Amino acid sequence: MPAHGNHTPHGYIQRKDEYLRRLRRIEGQVRGLQRMVEEEEYCIDILTQVSATTKALQSVSLGLLEEHLSHCVVDAARTGGQQADEKIQEASDAIARLVRS
Amino acid sequence: MPAHGNHTPHGYIQRKDEYLRRLRRIEGQVRGLQRMVEEEEYCIDILTQVSATTKALQSVSLGLLEEHLSHCVVDAARTGGQQADEKIQEASDAIARLVRS
Amino acid sequence: MPAHGNHTPHGYIQRKDEYLRRLRRIEGQVRGLQRMVEEEEYCIDILTQVSATTKALQSVSLGLLEEHLSHCVVDAARTGGQQADEKIQEASDAIARLVRS
Amino acid sequence: MPAHGNHTPHGYIQRKDEYLRRLRRIEGQVRGLQRMVEEEEYCIDILTQVSATTKALQSVSLGLLEEHLSHCVVDAARTGGQQADEKIQEASDAIARLVRS
Repeated sequence: MPAHGNHTPHGYIQRKDEYLRRLRRIEGQVRGLQRMVEEEEYCIDILTQVSATTKALQSVSLGLLEEHLSHCVVDAARTGGQQADEKIQEASDAIARLVRS
Repeated sequence: MPAHGNHTPHGYIQRKDEYLRRLRRIEGQVRGLQRMVEEEEYCIDILTQVSATTKALQSVSLGLLEEHLSHCVVDAARTGGQQADEKIQEASDAIARLVRS
Repeated sequence: MPAHGNHTPHGYIQRKDEYLRRLRRIEGQVRGLQRMVEEEEYCIDILTQVSATTKALQSVSLGLLEEHLSHCVVDAARTGGQQADEKIQEASDAIARLVRS
Repeated sequence: MPAHGNHTPHGYIQRKDEYLRRLRRIEGQVRGLQRMVEEEEYCIDILTQVSATTKALQSVSLGLLEEHLSHCVVDAARTGGQQADEKIQEASDAIARLVRS
């Protein structure tokens, strides 16, 4: 199981199947959007579905982030030193991207 | 070509192929996320791709919304009365969902 | 009453007092944040208040946007031509900034 | 200096003056918005300033969050056990509020 550097496996792997199921559902939602455009449905109805798809993606992000904090960041914190600082910076940058997307 | 009520076809239909191409690319991005989870890639790398996918969806929304304003809302404004008020309310609600997603 | 170009007064002016009251409340929220930092309160409690302040600002934006659509954009739509196109583009750019902020 | 439970002072306190200065500037921005509404300025110009104010608040949040992760969460991680879990949950909830505001 690939891990990042000398690091225990990533937190989300315990719920890997659930993440895969959620991502497959999101894939289905995006195909549904294609069908709506194909069938020239009303713009507002398509926009409503896009917002629902964005929310589903957002909740996948928040789940992954929580697992990352609980495992990768906590492990690095215990190791301390530069590794902890890097992990915190990395997590903070990911949070900033999430907030701004 | 189905239209919404007694209304000219929706604005986005002129760029239908472009929207379909963008949505198929987003579908590919979501399948890419599944692969990253399947191959147990690093959480932060997955989060970076989720943010990119969310941004792509967001720009599809903004495009659809602009077309909706330029066509459906402008048509209704010219018709005036209750139809114009309903279209404005509908567009404002869609904008609120977009802002809050 | 200053209007933008040869244009009827802006829509929000009918609810001017309400917007001023909401903005003064937001000003109070920001001063409250200063007090929390001054008194070195717990980070998470401050973050909770920042989110509440951001939501209050967001709802002011959505209100102003709805009034702008109902008045300025509808007026321009009835005038038609380049003025309508410019107003739609302007409103779409404002919506994009709001979505991305 | 009040601390949260048996916990070292909060991370942001090292940059307390900077946070106070930023929050005072945001207070000034909100008063500026009041002036724009008072003087019945154009809706789009007000919306532009609201987006700028929201971005300034957002960057205060991201700063506080990074300090919280670097200090409070890292400290709790070293302590381990329930305290670490609570801190992670608390930080994750704050991130979710930030993402959804």
